[in-house]
Amino acid sequence: MKLSIVYSTQITKFQAATFSGELKENISKIAHLGYDGVELAIRDPKLINLDELEENTKSLNLEVPALGTGQAWGEEGLSFTDPDPQIRKSAIERIQNHIPVAKRFDAVIIIGLIRGILKPGVHHKQAMDWLIDALQQCCSKAQKSEVRLALEPINRFETSLINNVEQGMQLVADVGMSNFGLLLDTFHMNIEEPNIEKSIEICGDRLFHFHVADSNRWYPGAGHLDFESILNKLSTTRYTGFISGEFLPLPDVDTAANNNINFLRNIRT
Amino acid sequence: MKLSIVYSTQITKFQAATFSGELKENISKIAHLGYDGVELAIRDPKLINLDELEENTKSLNLEVPALGTGQAWGEEGLSFTDPDPQIRKSAIERIQNHIPVAKRFDAVIIIGLIRGILKPGVHHKQAMDWLIDALQQCCSKAQKSEVRLALEPINRFETSLINNVEQGMQLVADVGMSNFGLLLDTFHMNIEEPNIEKSIEICGDRLFHFHVADSNRWYPGAGHLDFESILNKLSTTRYTGFISGEFLPLPDVDTAANNNINFLRNIRT
Repeated sequence: MKLSIVYSTQITKFQAATFSGELKENISKIAHLGYDGVELAIRDPKLINLDELEENTKSLNLEVPALGTGQAWGEEGLSFTDPDPQIRKSAIERIQNHIPVAKRFDAVIIIGLIRGILKPGVHHKQAMDWLIDALQQCCSKAQKSEVRLALEPINRFETSLINNVEQGMQLVADVGMSNFGLLLDTFHMNIEEPNIEKSIEICGDRLFHFHVADSNRWYPGAGHLDFESILNKLSTTRYTGFISGEFLPLPDVDTAANNNINFLRNIRT
Repeated sequence: MKLSIVYSTQITKFQAATFSGELKENISKIAHLGYDGVELAIRDPKLINLDELEENTKSLNLEVPALGTGQAWGEEGLSFTDPDPQIRKSAIERIQNHIPVAKRFDAVIIIGLIRGILKPGVHHKQAMDWLIDALQQCCSKAQKSEVRLALEPINRFETSLINNVEQGMQLVADVGMSNFGLLLDTFHMNIEEPNIEKSIEICGDRLFHFHVADSNRWYPGAGHLDFESILNKLSTTRYTGFISGEFLPLPDVDTAANNNINFLRNIRT
């Protein structure tokens, strides 16, 4: 079981970005806690020093399993489903700009809230058409670099587009690209999936990345989710990717990161 | 185990009002499904014909365990914590107007979203002071009629004020009235309570009413909550009130209401 944790390369409004701020100190802390990897939340690849990042992660033997992109939506309003074609175009370009970074780190590109939220006056069918088209454009370009994209079903309170695995797998079929799959997150699954283990099974080999947070979005062990059962299901589904911690930095970031790794390492799968 | 289900006396925007619309037909349907009671969501008691309502419920042997009041917030914007003192005053008057209705039906008055959401520029401490003051005014008046009020902890996405039992019990202590307690709802508890059964225990004899919906807000049995364990905990906590269904009317209202009662009646406590 390979464990990683989210680190935001910029200070962010997103509350569940576990670590954020000063690069060297945080990456080093993550490595010393025993993590195998660090998931990077990057608003815009142009704003970060990739050489410095690579040097830091390599020197600490940290893999980078995934790149989070949601801040481009949260802080700049970019989205695949905005009625403004210029915004949709910018969102597509932004994701395409992540491809060389993803290639460099062998990371999955996460499609979180950059898919957007149904805006007033936009029909669901229209938004889905824009979404499918944007994903096809991004996946085509990514395929040439052997990079994969994973869309995260997100709970109903945070988006009106793709809340659960059933809708996610329909989207996977509609996009029809082999490098497009899903990222499942236990916090969202707790609200949206009728049966968490069964949904993991349904996702099967289209499960490209996995986020853990407990039912209350604290670190695993702080809520009521059955992580033994969840990790066992991941194992029998032959998921070999990272289990990545994305949870609220509570009671403080160090305690949360430490409790997460201790809790998960003690589960037998 | 006494079972009820929510019926909205007005057509409402609130999605989890299971039944709404035509009074006689819906109340009769609820009785014939085998329910012991009907929880009434009433935006403004002045707008409904109480004699007709009482005649209908009595003739069908239906109790009215609780009155929902959230539509006064959802559709009129009334709230105990609005910065506008006139809105706060109207909210208090609205709840006080429910007291004679609650007395008539021996029902608990629910304080849901009428408590409000922290508005921009309002400090949390200020909102809590307004909330405590409003609840004390309402509870004092209700006490003379031996009517009880129950505040519902609601998940973080729907309000920023009182999300869980810990905060709710602190509020109960701060209000300091014997006729003020909590309403717990399994949908919200699934997100907010670290341990659902333990939170029921902590609430103890301040548990005045109980809502059921499964983890996905469908009828119990459609998600992954352990209702056997939850109902057993209610039983050992000596809760003798109603178990009231408040869930999305999916796949349709009749199926949901029927599946709920069949599922709950089959649980041994």
